[in-house]
Amino acid sequence: MTDDEVTDDTSARSGLSRRGLLGLAGLGAGVLGAGIGVGADRAVQASATGSSGAQATYPFYGKHQSGIVTAAQDRLHFAAFDVSEGTTRDDLVGLLKDWSYAAARMTRGEEVSKSGATGGSLYAPPDDTGEALGLPAAGLTITIGFGPSLFDDRFGLASKRPPRLIDLPSFAGDNLDDAMSGGDLCIQACSDDPQIAVHAIRNLSRIAFGRAGLRWSQLGFGRTSSTTRGQATPRNLFGFKDGTANLKAEDSALVAKDVWASASHGADWMDGGSYLVSRKIRMQIETWDHQSLKEQQTVVGRDKGAGAPLSGGTEFSAIDFHAKRDGAPAVPTTSHVSLAHPDHNGGAQLLRRGYNFVDGNDSLGRLNAGLFFICYQNDPENQFVRIQTALAANDAMNEYVQHVSSGIFAVPPGASRGGYVGETLFA
Amino acid sequence: MTDDEVTDDTSARSGLSRRGLLGLAGLGAGVLGAGIGVGADRAVQASATGSSGAQATYPFYGKHQSGIVTAAQDRLHFAAFDVSEGTTRDDLVGLLKDWSYAAARMTRGEEVSKSGATGGSLYAPPDDTGEALGLPAAGLTITIGFGPSLFDDRFGLASKRPPRLIDLPSFAGDNLDDAMSGGDLCIQACSDDPQIAVHAIRNLSRIAFGRAGLRWSQLGFGRTSSTTRGQATPRNLFGFKDGTANLKAEDSALVAKDVWASASHGADWMDGGSYLVSRKIRMQIETWDHQSLKEQQTVVGRDKGAGAPLSGGTEFSAIDFHAKRDGAPAVPTTSHVSLAHPDHNGGAQLLRRGYNFVDGNDSLGRLNAGLFFICYQNDPENQFVRIQTALAANDAMNEYVQHVSSGIFAVPPGASRGGYVGETLFA
Repeated sequence: MTDDEVTDDTSARSGLSRRGLLGLAGLGAGVLGAGIGVGADRAVQASATGSSGAQATYPFYGKHQSGIVTAAQDRLHFAAFDVSEGTTRDDLVGLLKDWSYAAARMTRGEEVSKSGATGGSLYAPPDDTGEALGLPAAGLTITIGFGPSLFDDRFGLASKRPPRLIDLPSFAGDNLDDAMSGGDLCIQACSDDPQIAVHAIRNLSRIAFGRAGLRWSQLGFGRTSSTTRGQATPRNLFGFKDGTANLKAEDSALVAKDVWASASHGADWMDGGSYLVSRKIRMQIETWDHQSLKEQQTVVGRDKGAGAPLSGGTEFSAIDFHAKRDGAPAVPTTSHVSLAHPDHNGGAQLLRRGYNFVDGNDSLGRLNAGLFFICYQNDPENQFVRIQTALAANDAMNEYVQHVSSGIFAVPPGASRGGYVGETLFA
Repeated sequence: MTDDEVTDDTSARSGLSRRGLLGLAGLGAGVLGAGIGVGADRAVQASATGSSGAQATYPFYGKHQSGIVTAAQDRLHFAAFDVSEGTTRDDLVGLLKDWSYAAARMTRGEEVSKSGATGGSLYAPPDDTGEALGLPAAGLTITIGFGPSLFDDRFGLASKRPPRLIDLPSFAGDNLDDAMSGGDLCIQACSDDPQIAVHAIRNLSRIAFGRAGLRWSQLGFGRTSSTTRGQATPRNLFGFKDGTANLKAEDSALVAKDVWASASHGADWMDGGSYLVSRKIRMQIETWDHQSLKEQQTVVGRDKGAGAPLSGGTEFSAIDFHAKRDGAPAVPTTSHVSLAHPDHNGGAQLLRRGYNFVDGNDSLGRLNAGLFFICYQNDPENQFVRIQTALAANDAMNEYVQHVSSGIFAVPPGASRGGYVGETLFA
């Protein structure tokens, strides 16, 4: 048995806190006296641990949180929360314990508690909302992060704010919607089944009731990044392969150097964690679609079919920025790949984990579509900010994209077996 | 070779119309003179027909359109369009021909045209947007329908409006958003890969440019209905199995009686077609989640775990509406299953094809989530309207749902090989 296979019996925590259960029942719903469902020992879903067979499961407990270097799943539900007025430091710790308990269960393909959707009292709201009953974990990972605003004076955390958890600067061209940006806390739920990712966010939101409320959320599909070399490079909604030249999980020396935070970075409690930057990038896809293939390839700096750099070769060929075509650089200096490339950013690289999105259409009949960009790194100032500053200033792609939401979160190390995400911060 | 495997070489139509190509290029984009991509005979994706191996493909041509009795795929992108001002009857026919041509190709796993995303002129916009390059058809079906408004005076179709293509009445509790309802035309794209469904709607929207514009659209996941008995009954976002007692594709006599339109229904041209009703049903999931298991089961009329009726048995047991418990009907008369049941609606049944949706959250932090309900039938007045009238008046579930979008569309029979959807209407 590995760390990720601990069962409730060996877990330090035997269930959700009373506050968590109040969240499930609904504060003030007036039906609590009849008996909270948790505590009933019917394990109706005991057989659905999801740890056998072809269905992937990833560990919740461990040195690092899953969902960072994990091979990118196909679907995303991302949510940012604000801690509710009146919530104390102890309440916040309780919330993180409840989230961790429920998350560990769900990543094993189990319901959020032992009694789940159907095993509790008939006279109490079920602990689990039930739409994932009978479904496997489908590779679910739940990754929890802390926004800069969590480190204000409310919870006595100001002195613990990691120096690398910076406030992102305003970039040229930003058109951010504050209501869709930031947040005290975030949860990234990734799975190969959107019903599983949605179930996770919904049930964690429920557990938070009265302690934290949903600020914004985003669904995504069709991962736009490969986090491992075993995954084919997917395409974004511009129709191009995306993220070819980025850091991969197999680059273990680079992952250690550029992704994982260490105690030497100014916040001991972040050792083994990372920093997540999210950017919702609306693509003007109708405008893009009306451009010639040449213009599209010039903007990207790659060939649309194979994804080869315009300097020649195949998708993974090194880009030759000195190659000339018709007297000009074959890979234009204002192309996306050129400006984003490590060679032009002091070696800065990102671990990307983005998803395509389509949120219906606007009133002019244009699809509200684009890229929900997520990246991980251990030094946002010198990684994401450096690269995005270059892109924001000169990227030929800027004519076709607009950043409408932004977030930065410190993602703590993984929880110890039966512990909780954030335990090193509050210890 | 079956009808669904026709290639371009045997198809009556050799490519998109000039209007369709203008749509791809963007009217007024000013780059048309350099050479439209179609006509180049490089078939870069010739190997990706998707008709071999484990990847499902469904026929586009045939007596009926696919996507009705087809085993429900996992993902949906639904779009409604309005015909643009100034579009003539001939333009409309041209659009339907272009849509059919491109749809037939995409359902085979091909790009929208022979030159596709990368095989055309460098100096023209590519015909295909490219994000499905390298992906299989993933069971794509594209189903085209005509709304009541198409049969006004604009296209000389008033006398052809099928008597069964009624205007839906206003139901008790409706809170419809006009901008998200109705439409002259609709396209239902279903696939097991959302990227494929999105690619289809996006490219068909593009082809329509200047002739029809997107009115509203909806993404869905986690089919809430089984259209065939081979599929397990899925769960909606209330956590219950949904659609257990509905018509299935295997019920061939019932499908013939209740789903397919016939010439005897007052519109010859609809013979082999059907009528689609769409309803976007917002679920108040936070309120629902705060109800006791007993309340939830009483509202639905079924057990949450197995989906068995409250009169006993298992999921597919016949419901005993006479069974009593504690002196009252075991299956309450105001429960959803009771009011929706054929026994209480003169035998009326529907072929259901709904999907769950989550469209982010509202400003109060509640998930904007629910059910995008789709059903097919040949007599909406005596099927959907009859059942929905009963539900709207008395369904205990009404406390937790609100209908926010509505649509009804005549779905013509399938196109003949190389023909187009709607050919029987315009013949």
